[in-house]
Amino acid sequence: MPLNILVTGGAGFVGSHTVLELLNAGHAVICVDNLCNAYGGGAESKLPESLKRVQQITGASIIFYDVDIRNRAELQAVFQKHKIDCVVHFAALKAVGESCRIPLKYYQNNITGTSVLLEVMAEAGVFKIVYSSSATVYGEPQKLPLTESHPTGNCTNPYGKSKYFTEEIMKDLCESDPRWSVVSLRYFNPVGAHKSGRIGEDPNGEPNNLMPYISQVAVGRRECLRVFGSNYDTPDGTGVRDYIHIVDLAEGHVKAIDKLVGGSIGGFCVYNLGTGRGYSVLEVVKAFSKASGKEVKYEIVDRRAGDVAASYADVSLAAKELGWTAKRGLDEMCEDTWNWQKNNPNGFAG
Amino acid sequence: MPLNILVTGGAGFVGSHTVLELLNAGHAVICVDNLCNAYGGGAESKLPESLKRVQQITGASIIFYDVDIRNRAELQAVFQKHKIDCVVHFAALKAVGESCRIPLKYYQNNITGTSVLLEVMAEAGVFKIVYSSSATVYGEPQKLPLTESHPTGNCTNPYGKSKYFTEEIMKDLCESDPRWSVVSLRYFNPVGAHKSGRIGEDPNGEPNNLMPYISQVAVGRRECLRVFGSNYDTPDGTGVRDYIHIVDLAEGHVKAIDKLVGGSIGGFCVYNLGTGRGYSVLEVVKAFSKASGKEVKYEIVDRRAGDVAASYADVSLAAKELGWTAKRGLDEMCEDTWNWQKNNPNGFAG
Repeated sequence: MPLNILVTGGAGFVGSHTVLELLNAGHAVICVDNLCNAYGGGAESKLPESLKRVQQITGASIIFYDVDIRNRAELQAVFQKHKIDCVVHFAALKAVGESCRIPLKYYQNNITGTSVLLEVMAEAGVFKIVYSSSATVYGEPQKLPLTESHPTGNCTNPYGKSKYFTEEIMKDLCESDPRWSVVSLRYFNPVGAHKSGRIGEDPNGEPNNLMPYISQVAVGRRECLRVFGSNYDTPDGTGVRDYIHIVDLAEGHVKAIDKLVGGSIGGFCVYNLGTGRGYSVLEVVKAFSKASGKEVKYEIVDRRAGDVAASYADVSLAAKELGWTAKRGLDEMCEDTWNWQKNNPNGFAG
Repeated sequence: MPLNILVTGGAGFVGSHTVLELLNAGHAVICVDNLCNAYGGGAESKLPESLKRVQQITGASIIFYDVDIRNRAELQAVFQKHKIDCVVHFAALKAVGESCRIPLKYYQNNITGTSVLLEVMAEAGVFKIVYSSSATVYGEPQKLPLTESHPTGNCTNPYGKSKYFTEEIMKDLCESDPRWSVVSLRYFNPVGAHKSGRIGEDPNGEPNNLMPYISQVAVGRRECLRVFGSNYDTPDGTGVRDYIHIVDLAEGHVKAIDKLVGGSIGGFCVYNLGTGRGYSVLEVVKAFSKASGKEVKYEIVDRRAGDVAASYADVSLAAKELGWTAKRGLDEMCEDTWNWQKNNPNGFAG
């Protein structure tokens, strides 16, 4: 059944890939984004570059509003104009380092923004939402693989806390009113890009994450990868993470919406989205070199504060309840990242 | 040194008693309150009844603004008009039961409100704040007495979580910028009233807390006290709490401001404000009967979800670093509550 899906933060990396899969699934997408991290758009409500390309790839139209979700009146107007069946909520700031330097900016954007969105939803009679959470809510893993019942909290930075606090707010909301159904998707490490090579991750400035950094080294935008620590208790001493292909992740959202709107899940539900398999930094470097045919120079430097040795998901709950499993492996993640990077060496700017 | 102190939520129970002690200490008080839980005030920026009486008792004037701290422009105007040395932040919703029914209202008022306040303070170059926190941030005590290093979080209701989240936000802020100094005061159970009997606790509707309930029974406004559980692991089976006289609590704020503005404490500091001594429900009933000369009818009913057997503070840190200790005992708490109640059987309404 085609639905009207409101997507907040739809211009971003996870947002744009999810919008694409929602359109492919036949849904109508109404997108709000304040464009604070997007290339293009802005004037005359024109689409940001990422969503322009999603329209070209899919041949479908996106209804777009240049709206900050903290602007209650503007958000209310969007809900008045469209009958929304379900919200997918990506809009948030996500740079860990910046969150430590400017914590209030993160709490205002991520917590206040979400609170306004939820209030406006309730006013409009919309009580179904898929939330873009993160494995960061688990803090340092006490046990691997991480299951959804692992304790949350103990996050070491304001970005992570804002994800954790938002989950708690949504949990309280579901307990207060049975009309609410929330699916919180805890992402592990999203990488890769759409097969077309036309949309992908386009970080501002120096990338925070491994894969975009590697791919910028491979394409010649950066000199050398710094590997933070080689004496962790892992097979090759470098940190192990659960990487997930962005298209798998996007498909997870589509499945979650199906179940949520279909009513087979309700209340506050949480699912890990990962592959369940960890790869070390050096394994990723090697796979990326193979996929790109480029040497990726790296140097080992000191550990980074707050990094853990290994983190990967137990993904059985999403398989069981959402009927979703990641299908794409590390080689495909690297090939698709490289395909995006080599065709767009400077991201959406060309 | 006389200071300009901005007090948010100054019309409330703890707020009004603290304003009184600040005026007694020679400080100037600028008060903002949205009057959502206050009697009187509103039209033509007239003072709420509690602060009118504080002016009468002290002979000093209060500058008052009927402003909601979430209203950024109005709050900015207050900071532009007055050179503020330090903020004392009481403004928050506090009814546990209501917070479970309407959680977003609590997160919006308490978290968004605090975030706006902190941003406006920073813009105005004011970086010192005393925060009205609560022992509720400790969740269920793992060990008694509760020291400030006891883990926080695991709060069972949105009110408690909003206090915990706010502390975390303030902690992050202090870590991000050394100009910030925050004193978070974790109150145990504030009771009693000013000696004059002219200001006191004036709950809306059925009181959530023990002492106002008892005093309403004693004055004939309510039939009978319900005691929630008599089979706890305590000397007489009823719950044990650390009650603190509201004037002691108010004096704690004055001391905290002295140290904060004097610069002898900085960064993010936390202090318990309690007596360090627990009393059971039945001990409080007995003491109140003695103080009032009235019988207090009670019946034992089932335990209430979320209540713990006993909770009381380790108060040595505030003694050491703030030079503050509670001076008033249970009998005085009951006498002063009764003095307020019998002179104001219906609170500020007369």
